[in-house]
Amino acid sequence: MTKWVYSFGAGKAEGNAGLRDLLGGKGANLAEMSGLGLPVPPGFTITTEVCTHYSEHDDSYPADLKPQVAMAMAEMEKLIGKKFNDASDPLLVSVRSGARASMPGMMDTVLNLGLNDVTVLGLAAKSGDERFAYDSYRRFIQMYGDVVLGVDHHHFEEILQNHKEDQGYALDTDMTAQDWKQMVQAYGEKVEQELGRPFPQDPEEQLWGAVSAVFGSWMNQRAITYRRLHNIPEDWGTAVNVQAMVFGNMGDDCATGVCFTRNPSTGENAYYGEFLVNAQGEDVVAGIRTPQPLTIAEKNDNHAGLPALEEVMPEMYAELVRIRSVLEKHYKDMQDMEFTIQQNKLWMLQTRGGKRTAAAGLRIAVDMVDENLIDKKEAVLRIDPAQLDQLLHPMLDPDAERHVIARGLPASPGAASGHVVFSAEDAESKHAIGEKVILVRIETSPEDIGGMYVAQGILTTRGGMTSHAAVVARGMGTPCVSGVGALRVDYAAKTMTSAGKVIQEGDLITIDGASGEVMLGEVATIQPKMTGAFGRLMEWVDEFRTMGVRANAETPEDAETAHRFGAEGIGLCRTEHMFFDAQRITHVRRMIVAKNESERREALKQILPFQRQDFIELFKIMDGLPVTIRLLDPPLHEFLPHTDKDMAVVAKAAGVDVLTVKTRAAQLNETNPMLGHRGCRLGITYPEIYEMQARAIFEAAVEVTKAGKKIIPEIMIPLVAVKAELDMMKEVVDRVAEEVMTAAGVKVNYMVGTMIELPRAALRAGEIAKTAEFFSFGTNDLTQTTFGLSRDDAGNFLGIYRDKGVIETDPFVSIDVDGVGELITIGTERGRATRPGLKVGICGEHGGDPASVNFCQKAGLDYVSCSPYRVPIARLAAAQAALGQGVGVKANA
Amino acid sequence: MTKWVYSFGAGKAEGNAGLRDLLGGKGANLAEMSGLGLPVPPGFTITTEVCTHYSEHDDSYPADLKPQVAMAMAEMEKLIGKKFNDASDPLLVSVRSGARASMPGMMDTVLNLGLNDVTVLGLAAKSGDERFAYDSYRRFIQMYGDVVLGVDHHHFEEILQNHKEDQGYALDTDMTAQDWKQMVQAYGEKVEQELGRPFPQDPEEQLWGAVSAVFGSWMNQRAITYRRLHNIPEDWGTAVNVQAMVFGNMGDDCATGVCFTRNPSTGENAYYGEFLVNAQGEDVVAGIRTPQPLTIAEKNDNHAGLPALEEVMPEMYAELVRIRSVLEKHYKDMQDMEFTIQQNKLWMLQTRGGKRTAAAGLRIAVDMVDENLIDKKEAVLRIDPAQLDQLLHPMLDPDAERHVIARGLPASPGAASGHVVFSAEDAESKHAIGEKVILVRIETSPEDIGGMYVAQGILTTRGGMTSHAAVVARGMGTPCVSGVGALRVDYAAKTMTSAGKVIQEGDLITIDGASGEVMLGEVATIQPKMTGAFGRLMEWVDEFRTMGVRANAETPEDAETAHRFGAEGIGLCRTEHMFFDAQRITHVRRMIVAKNESERREALKQILPFQRQDFIELFKIMDGLPVTIRLLDPPLHEFLPHTDKDMAVVAKAAGVDVLTVKTRAAQLNETNPMLGHRGCRLGITYPEIYEMQARAIFEAAVEVTKAGKKIIPEIMIPLVAVKAELDMMKEVVDRVAEEVMTAAGVKVNYMVGTMIELPRAALRAGEIAKTAEFFSFGTNDLTQTTFGLSRDDAGNFLGIYRDKGVIETDPFVSIDVDGVGELITIGTERGRATRPGLKVGICGEHGGDPASVNFCQKAGLDYVSCSPYRVPIARLAAAQAALGQGVGVKANA
Repeated sequence: MTKWVYSFGAGKAEGNAGLRDLLGGKGANLAEMSGLGLPVPPGFTITTEVCTHYSEHDDSYPADLKPQVAMAMAEMEKLIGKKFNDASDPLLVSVRSGARASMPGMMDTVLNLGLNDVTVLGLAAKSGDERFAYDSYRRFIQMYGDVVLGVDHHHFEEILQNHKEDQGYALDTDMTAQDWKQMVQAYGEKVEQELGRPFPQDPEEQLWGAVSAVFGSWMNQRAITYRRLHNIPEDWGTAVNVQAMVFGNMGDDCATGVCFTRNPSTGENAYYGEFLVNAQGEDVVAGIRTPQPLTIAEKNDNHAGLPALEEVMPEMYAELVRIRSVLEKHYKDMQDMEFTIQQNKLWMLQTRGGKRTAAAGLRIAVDMVDENLIDKKEAVLRIDPAQLDQLLHPMLDPDAERHVIARGLPASPGAASGHVVFSAEDAESKHAIGEKVILVRIETSPEDIGGMYVAQGILTTRGGMTSHAAVVARGMGTPCVSGVGALRVDYAAKTMTSAGKVIQEGDLITIDGASGEVMLGEVATIQPKMTGAFGRLMEWVDEFRTMGVRANAETPEDAETAHRFGAEGIGLCRTEHMFFDAQRITHVRRMIVAKNESERREALKQILPFQRQDFIELFKIMDGLPVTIRLLDPPLHEFLPHTDKDMAVVAKAAGVDVLTVKTRAAQLNETNPMLGHRGCRLGITYPEIYEMQARAIFEAAVEVTKAGKKIIPEIMIPLVAVKAELDMMKEVVDRVAEEVMTAAGVKVNYMVGTMIELPRAALRAGEIAKTAEFFSFGTNDLTQTTFGLSRDDAGNFLGIYRDKGVIETDPFVSIDVDGVGELITIGTERGRATRPGLKVGICGEHGGDPASVNFCQKAGLDYVSCSPYRVPIARLAAAQAALGQGVGVKANA
Repeated sequence: MTKWVYSFGAGKAEGNAGLRDLLGGKGANLAEMSGLGLPVPPGFTITTEVCTHYSEHDDSYPADLKPQVAMAMAEMEKLIGKKFNDASDPLLVSVRSGARASMPGMMDTVLNLGLNDVTVLGLAAKSGDERFAYDSYRRFIQMYGDVVLGVDHHHFEEILQNHKEDQGYALDTDMTAQDWKQMVQAYGEKVEQELGRPFPQDPEEQLWGAVSAVFGSWMNQRAITYRRLHNIPEDWGTAVNVQAMVFGNMGDDCATGVCFTRNPSTGENAYYGEFLVNAQGEDVVAGIRTPQPLTIAEKNDNHAGLPALEEVMPEMYAELVRIRSVLEKHYKDMQDMEFTIQQNKLWMLQTRGGKRTAAAGLRIAVDMVDENLIDKKEAVLRIDPAQLDQLLHPMLDPDAERHVIARGLPASPGAASGHVVFSAEDAESKHAIGEKVILVRIETSPEDIGGMYVAQGILTTRGGMTSHAAVVARGMGTPCVSGVGALRVDYAAKTMTSAGKVIQEGDLITIDGASGEVMLGEVATIQPKMTGAFGRLMEWVDEFRTMGVRANAETPEDAETAHRFGAEGIGLCRTEHMFFDAQRITHVRRMIVAKNESERREALKQILPFQRQDFIELFKIMDGLPVTIRLLDPPLHEFLPHTDKDMAVVAKAAGVDVLTVKTRAAQLNETNPMLGHRGCRLGITYPEIYEMQARAIFEAAVEVTKAGKKIIPEIMIPLVAVKAELDMMKEVVDRVAEEVMTAAGVKVNYMVGTMIELPRAALRAGEIAKTAEFFSFGTNDLTQTTFGLSRDDAGNFLGIYRDKGVIETDPFVSIDVDGVGELITIGTERGRATRPGLKVGICGEHGGDPASVNFCQKAGLDYVSCSPYRVPIARLAAAQAALGQGVGVKANA
């Protein structure tokens, strides 16, 4: 005989958490709790197999189901000490769905089942509260009428509304017992009028009506659509849970509350919770009454003065303390519990892993290792890498008032306040006189670097999570909100407008790069501390981690930060960022407008000492670690000035007229600069540029080596599509290296490799690896080209794509495993087939995204490289990935 | 005993054309000719195996080589009737290299070998020309000195120059026999001075010196580099050919000439050639003397009046006629021959397949089928598809004078003259008053379509072979030269400047889209005729062809052209080209600036009748054939006006102010439009646009079906990266189709498919084929994204890439087999794995490139689609590919 029904209650259960497929999530958890000996209101679960049978057999049940349900009902009655349909003290039950996978709001629930014109009198008598009894009854009729009988709930709401208006009532609380009685009467009449038969009075009939409604709801359109969208197979079915009702609102010996086994904000190992006397669960959440603290310690802490449960119901509290201990030992995690006290009897309604702040999560995990509840591996797996980000930046004080005027994308975490400026120049001049500024731009360009660097925060009205502003800001650890489409910036007037509100230059605003909010005025922030727990966890992380983590850094400040956060080298040093410094940009521009190679070489000679000094500083900081240096990548027009004034400066420096500079700028202008004259295409056209850069690198390496440091430059040629490009550029680098090392009499080990950032490079990796000594996947550009998607422009429609469900994941945030990911896999396999053991990493923005890090581990990469502030996140994600439990990527079709 | 030496001469030969590996190309051909019984000057070939032995054995020869050479020399002496080193009538020989693969100019040659201070007297006596004898001798010393002895030729040139100056001579022809004697003396002294020993007088020593020099030259640096670049293995080696010298300049019973077995310009089956009495081969080429015609018919034809060989040496001519017949029967192709008559004896020096015009090639191939010389298959394989293009466009009269002022890319074939205009508007207004114009633009945009359409030719200073101008021009069959970087256009002044020369609006220029030349004034053109041979060949082509050929066309004119050229349907109808018509562009712009969906729908409703009419016309022309229609693809900003005046028109039509239009234009502006908000991204964002297009298509299809035509619309969704995009757009199309067909009560068969033009789409083809009913590879965009290369910007550096040897082939011209090609193969395989028999084509510019067509055949594609004027080329290329002998693509690494 198939067992269709599983009972639970009184500290026992026929099921347990392992039977999730059969009992559904809710049923399995109730069984587990009950099996732990906790006071769970008794009940039973009708299995998912019944649902399948029901669907497949024309909405009919297995023959032996009814007897099994009858037995389970009898057991429940015994355990709760009440009888179904008992006129004096009726057992009421809830009937709820519960599928294997969570399908929130998709299926139906009926509460207070078992009430009828007779039992309501018993409930009133037993509770001593007639109003409560009739309110419960009318709720039942409304819910059952809607869910089971198909009488739309607006019918009932209309009746109630009319009555309240007639009586001049404002709130439901104005309703008396008599009023609710009238409602019960009127609701019943409405049901009869709609259906042509009275509301069912037989609790048995009510029960089977509700069970069938739940099973039937598995096949309703809403559920079918939901399953299709979430890939839930139809044959999983839902279970039905029938459970005795308990009430926290039956008098002053009743209460309801929620509690956490540890403090969810700080992680402190102290009981934490709140409750309300004579109340329902909703009341705690609704916030109309102020809840009371669970413990005396809490009461003293927050000075609210309300008495604690520990004082007013010490026995109940003692029971809760016991349960706390049972649950933490069992689940080995901080629990978030719901309880109800009905007439001095404690009932546990639910327990689940509690939500917590990043700091609390960290502390709890580390404490639990110390308490021998979990091992280090478990602790490492417990922390959500994405949440870790919170610990690395200042955040808004959650209690501070905020006046949000617009929302954009959370482009770089952290909160910042400052005075609005609309240009990088203004940012620098205001900064020079000690003012804190927020740099507001429609979008940023490499020219704005100086201003971005001194700003407290950056706000752009265009661009996505991987726009220039976002990438640079994350690299610098500066808060940034990007793509705030609702803001209109007027550079000329130096104003920005949001929904009619005009903000002038100099006005104070606050941005929250973690939420994307833009607020008026200064909002208080708090600086999260690097607790000892953080350091200990990161040590464990590194014990499990197998993949390297490097940082993308080019300034000494970034390199220092990266080093402090545990980066094992620099995976991407973007040399072009070094070109914008005020001292050298004019030389750079002279180089660009040069008429011929010899003029170009002349200008490059001026840039050389600066670049050399840059590398000397980086090499010193990264002593003993590899530094991957990408030679010049962006198109030259990015370096040219836009204003007449700046053009005049360049013209003068280059000894040409302004028209020449303008003409050159116009010549260099490109339709699609992303696909234009950049990367190694510059090196092929003007080998002298890469030559200068190679010279700067090797002269710096020689000097640092002489000073006793160990340095391993990895020189990276960008945007290679064809092996011959790499061959030619490697020839230039090798020649210069030989010259410099011979002249200095110093030998420096180095490698020459390439970015794999074009689909063709990934496909031709076998050829390219004949020359390349390492690969680094540039996943930003690889995503742009594989998808044919400009990250600067995608903001215009990616939002719509997400809203319409075309994509699940922004491919610039998490690696597109099926497309870009396949190219990474192909590139790695083919590269290593040619050159076994080829070192392969990634250096796109994805290097700091946990799901992407997990992919990289699976793809067999040697390291990921990310912005300095994301290094700890990448380390944690890599450890979890190595443990086979990395964050999954939601794939786009 | 190994045979190291192969003799030939007197109508016999030990070798033949099949021994190319052993005898090298030249040796094998000489043997073949001699074996045919032709009067080839006797000689012998020392095999490539000797070369290998020589390299591997420290520059020494096999022991039995010398006896074999001695025997061959004796044979040669017997055949020619002269003796080596004979003081009265010496045999002179040439010594030439000849490798298996042609290595032009890479290795060395010595002529007149056998002359010394004694034999020169015999030569003088025998020829009766002392001047000739000493000139030959001094040439020999110079050549031998340079090649064999290593005395640089500038030494000899200096001596000659000094002597001429001393004597006051301007030309070599001023030199007398006495002068040459002095030179022989002086050259000999110079050799002795440089080497410390006299110039070798022993012909035997001369011979072995020359043979060793040729074998040694196989390993010289120039040859090694050449082999590396052309992938020629070192162990192939070279052969050495020793052959008796014959002279056409020994008197009036001597002559030299070249002839073609058929007319190389027209293909007419008539002997054709020219000769000079008492001359050397160089003299015919040098053009100092006017050559005489071969036949009397020629003489009569070109009225030059000079007597024909047929008249002056009738016996020699009769022999040549006999040889013509032998050669054509043997080689089964038109031959280009060189001959020399020495003292009334005819010698054949060379024969090879003759170069010919496209028209001649076609006629010869067809005639030869009629003459049973070759079969149809051979005829089809004989025609170079690229050359066929010449037949489809007017070309410059080769005899017309031309004043070339600049050169660009040959973007669309054909020549055109006209008055320069600098805007599409001016082109249209000038055209309206009957003026022929050449439209000159820096680059063109879809806005210029009207002007491009009426222009005789198009010239742009930017953009490559697949720039907008080039693609559109080829589609229209209009000559175009693109990317003329040396021209500077000033729109404001309405001038263009090339190297200081200013061309005003209205000036006459001529462009040659086949060569890329830009010329001043009007240069005469000739209209090639579509001969009957063309039609017959194309019939045979279609017998062998297995792959379909369609055309890219959207106007009725294009569709007619395509149909006439044999297109089997339309493979790409770009609906956006229909948006620019003056009657509708304002509605299109209103649609773009619309504030909301209902305004957008209102504007679309105005566009619908126009689009419907477009399709009705296309469908009627393509009755019975498939028409693939791509829904709107380009980003919307391409449709917006740039001038204030045009913006005002749009603003008025849309009922908004100009600022709104400008703001919208600014919002739509993109950094990388190629990777921006375009293709199906528009359809996802504004489904109503695709809905209108689908409605226009189905309403047209219904109407045409009712009129008794058969029409198969294939609706193509562009720029799909993710399957969900196609799913959503197919839903829109299917819904509209159902609505329209139901309303009309007419059923139309149709398909919905997609462009595969992004690397991700190719990789995810298996998923996408679940929805797509056909694939069409958009190889333009696929090349752009796979290479990360914007075709609008690549002109800036692709030239440098070719010059530096980074790429061999422009990937926008011929498919990049290793990169883009692999994606096409992957996409096709995965698509068909999901949907067996999936129809797959390509519709990029590559569809008309023979090498790419060959690739498509190998990749198993069902059809290629190209611009109407390239349809015959694609048909021919497809036939050759089907025969397994398609044009190869030079792969980039």
